[in-house]
Amino acid sequence: MTDKRIFNFNAGPAALPLPVLQEIQSSFLNFDGSGMSIVEISHRSPLFDAVINDAVERTKRLLGLDDRFHVLFVQGGASLQFAMAPMNFLAGNRSADFVNTGTWSTKAINEAKILKKNYSVVASSEDKNFSYIPKEIKFNKDAAYVHITSNNTIKGTQWQTFPDTNNVPIVADMSSDFMSRPLDMDRFGMIYAGAQKNIGPSGVCMVIIRKDMLDLATDELPSMLRYSTYSSKNSMYNTPPCFGIYTIQLVLKWLEETVGGLEKMEARNIAKGKLLYGFINNSDFYRTTAAADSQSLMNVTFRLPTEDLERSFIEKATAKGLGGLKGHRSVGGCRASIYNATTLEAVEALVDFMQIFEKEN
Amino acid sequence: MTDKRIFNFNAGPAALPLPVLQEIQSSFLNFDGSGMSIVEISHRSPLFDAVINDAVERTKRLLGLDDRFHVLFVQGGASLQFAMAPMNFLAGNRSADFVNTGTWSTKAINEAKILKKNYSVVASSEDKNFSYIPKEIKFNKDAAYVHITSNNTIKGTQWQTFPDTNNVPIVADMSSDFMSRPLDMDRFGMIYAGAQKNIGPSGVCMVIIRKDMLDLATDELPSMLRYSTYSSKNSMYNTPPCFGIYTIQLVLKWLEETVGGLEKMEARNIAKGKLLYGFINNSDFYRTTAAADSQSLMNVTFRLPTEDLERSFIEKATAKGLGGLKGHRSVGGCRASIYNATTLEAVEALVDFMQIFEKEN
Repeated sequence: MTDKRIFNFNAGPAALPLPVLQEIQSSFLNFDGSGMSIVEISHRSPLFDAVINDAVERTKRLLGLDDRFHVLFVQGGASLQFAMAPMNFLAGNRSADFVNTGTWSTKAINEAKILKKNYSVVASSEDKNFSYIPKEIKFNKDAAYVHITSNNTIKGTQWQTFPDTNNVPIVADMSSDFMSRPLDMDRFGMIYAGAQKNIGPSGVCMVIIRKDMLDLATDELPSMLRYSTYSSKNSMYNTPPCFGIYTIQLVLKWLEETVGGLEKMEARNIAKGKLLYGFINNSDFYRTTAAADSQSLMNVTFRLPTEDLERSFIEKATAKGLGGLKGHRSVGGCRASIYNATTLEAVEALVDFMQIFEKEN
Repeated sequence: MTDKRIFNFNAGPAALPLPVLQEIQSSFLNFDGSGMSIVEISHRSPLFDAVINDAVERTKRLLGLDDRFHVLFVQGGASLQFAMAPMNFLAGNRSADFVNTGTWSTKAINEAKILKKNYSVVASSEDKNFSYIPKEIKFNKDAAYVHITSNNTIKGTQWQTFPDTNNVPIVADMSSDFMSRPLDMDRFGMIYAGAQKNIGPSGVCMVIIRKDMLDLATDELPSMLRYSTYSSKNSMYNTPPCFGIYTIQLVLKWLEETVGGLEKMEARNIAKGKLLYGFINNSDFYRTTAAADSQSLMNVTFRLPTEDLERSFIEKATAKGLGGLKGHRSVGGCRASIYNATTLEAVEALVDFMQIFEKEN
């Protein structure tokens, strides 16, 4: 069936590395000689311990994490993290700074508001329809943390460098660019990432948390909403999402052993981005929607001269085996999501198609 | 690889129907002709709509649900439900009645306590080490709900009939016997079930909720912790656990089309239980740990004359391809979990082995 696969530009759930999918498939009825599927083995078995521990160790190596950090697997997606972060970090009168760069930041702010927590929105790009990442932000020195969304899937923007927050820890939603480039972990108190873009299937959210952040929580939180419940039990206070963690383990193995680490991954992503943005910038037919200094290497959002042409473009691309090019339903237009697992070959096929479509219209 | 599969008596994650696993495997690189894996398709696509809608419709048909009920898919397992139920249903001074039948009930009670909610423990079997299900319970007429755990995986007990609560809705944790028998839904305000025993992989919790229960929640709950967020968006406020929902869909299809519905499923489960309990009851070597009127058809807990013999039994059984027979780490002994997907053939193989082991020792 492999030969019938399409070039997948979905925004998430999104393309995963083919060798990972093939390994899952080939061992699906008999995981590691156990005589059981990965979905049938106990999470309390040595078999699963090996999976989750390997995923944690690979994460530590890939990001260069030292002992200050825990690597956790939580359910509920980034949307639950929007609530868990303020629940855990904003006890009493503590306050957080938020930078609003679009839909996902707005949702994160809204959960702090529902919870009646103290917060300030210290910068926003709403004035220009979230088409850029704010610069020269004045942060509050006494904030418990600064919340940012590192990449905006809908508007195609991405923080290309991270802001100087005067040592206030950054809490970053990296759902759509986690593991796409190396990080200076000294900046971060917590990173969270729904897996379904760069590292696995939906249903698992990875959380990298600095240990001192755990101390901000009080005892009044339900067990499943307290980060220390996860850190003290290697993410297995209750049954974790085993299949998702297993898939993540295989993706991390691919990142380390096949790609060769995050520097190499970033180089691949830059090459794909240069090809696609380069082509669009040289065209009078296509135009990008994000400001030049804020363009995302993960989600390339672009428009055609008319909405009719956009509809025709998406339809014809789909027929040619180029899927997922429709922009988010809230903004329209076109979007090519080119996460880690999207190959240069896929981007080349897309650019070829875009050239032909431009000539024909 | 199929021929190397073992007889799997794991307590959860547990055995799934082989035809379901085979279907997942065969379509894993190309779901429904899409050219993408099920883990790569958008949850906003017609392809995934068909999956989740079919899972909901099959659930409604299997349980005979009328329009009073919503069928939801939530992350976080039953452990998150332990907190979500009191958060949603016990606003203000409302109180819940709990029946304590073991570890899982105790955990559910503890989350209500952490949340400082009002509650009463109206019955408990702790006096006899949770070896039975309490009878003749006096419920509070003004309780918002009565919470029970329908099956205790650790002690091997199960509610064989549900109590008369004077029309107070029952909220039941059915993680370990959901879809194992028909239910009189008039009794229930909500049922929740972590999927990883009878209906799918870990990482999805099914929630069947009566619509009037939604009105008990206030606006002050985070979005992901409010049942109405799920009911108003067909469980897709954010990206749902797609692979888990897909697997559940296939298990429900197997239940409807291969097994023939919940009456037939119950008859299969009774036949397996009769065989195994019948054998144990006729033996002087093995003994069950649960009271006769409370024995579970899902988890058969039993002891041998000594702990040394138990260790030897589990070791030799494992070597013969009978896996997962160790009792829960908190109680020791042996346990055969014989959920829906465990075949009569597997139980026959276990009884054969038990006979031989008894003779040899």
